[in-house]
Amino acid sequence: MTFIIREAQKEDMPSVLKLITELAVFEREPEAVVVTVEDLVNYGFKKEPAFFTFVAEEAGTIVGMALFYYRFSTWKGVTIHLEDLIVTQSHRGSGIGKALYDKVLEVAHMKGLKRVEWAVLDWNTTAIKFYESTGAVIQKDWRVCQMTDAGLKKYLESK
Amino acid sequence: MTFIIREAQKEDMPSVLKLITELAVFEREPEAVVVTVEDLVNYGFKKEPAFFTFVAEEAGTIVGMALFYYRFSTWKGVTIHLEDLIVTQSHRGSGIGKALYDKVLEVAHMKGLKRVEWAVLDWNTTAIKFYESTGAVIQKDWRVCQMTDAGLKKYLESK
Repeated sequence: MTFIIREAQKEDMPSVLKLITELAVFEREPEAVVVTVEDLVNYGFKKEPAFFTFVAEEAGTIVGMALFYYRFSTWKGVTIHLEDLIVTQSHRGSGIGKALYDKVLEVAHMKGLKRVEWAVLDWNTTAIKFYESTGAVIQKDWRVCQMTDAGLKKYLESK
Repeated sequence: MTFIIREAQKEDMPSVLKLITELAVFEREPEAVVVTVEDLVNYGFKKEPAFFTFVAEEAGTIVGMALFYYRFSTWKGVTIHLEDLIVTQSHRGSGIGKALYDKVLEVAHMKGLKRVEWAVLDWNTTAIKFYESTGAVIQKDWRVCQMTDAGLKKYLESK
């Protein structure tokens, strides 16, 4: 299998959204995706993009992608957050995921950043094993806490 | 106790760094803070700031702060990440933390964002109880995964 890794263009966003949706199904939350192709184009290609995307292309088809953006740690300064690393089901196990992952890590390394961070589901042992094999560390005592828009509304109106 | 919540200015960054360091001690990682006042000024007050800060001021002294920035969820679009919510030890339990927290949630609500996210230590039951009382949800099956700069170097050079 021959593939190339390249920066995504606006025209790739429909394929990127397809991969995002495929991942949401894998993560058992198919209803959770409310982002549109237009959102991806608007936010990913404005003057100060909200995110950056590498895609993996094989014979003209996008078969994987890594989407990341910058965060600011009050301990470490600017960091990279790897939001999504996705390879379509039919192309897994062929090194595409690793190539995309490496590309994002290279950006962080070249920029001299002190951290790359991402989230993983605790039952996704294949992914965890891979990440740990590269030297990444699972932060066992941190939990992700979220408030939804509905939660915000309810809480702020009850004050 | 009378306090005000306001947007931080460059001049507040030494006080903000002091709070950041105080939190790192509480979280049992006092050595982890490498950020400087200069970093905070440079990244927090450039044209497209890397983060935004509210401070709580009492009688001219900064006694708490909430620092946040924007992220991009491939499911929900633009979200707010609450990086730090800190009240100095001597002023805890007087509503300052809640006032800062509410302020950040209000920004998200006013902008119509679909999510506010942050991280909490699983042994910090006081914080977890407070967050849950406001309608926030702890994502029990997600784990934070991190690669340090040393890890990046080692991994990329071994390829």
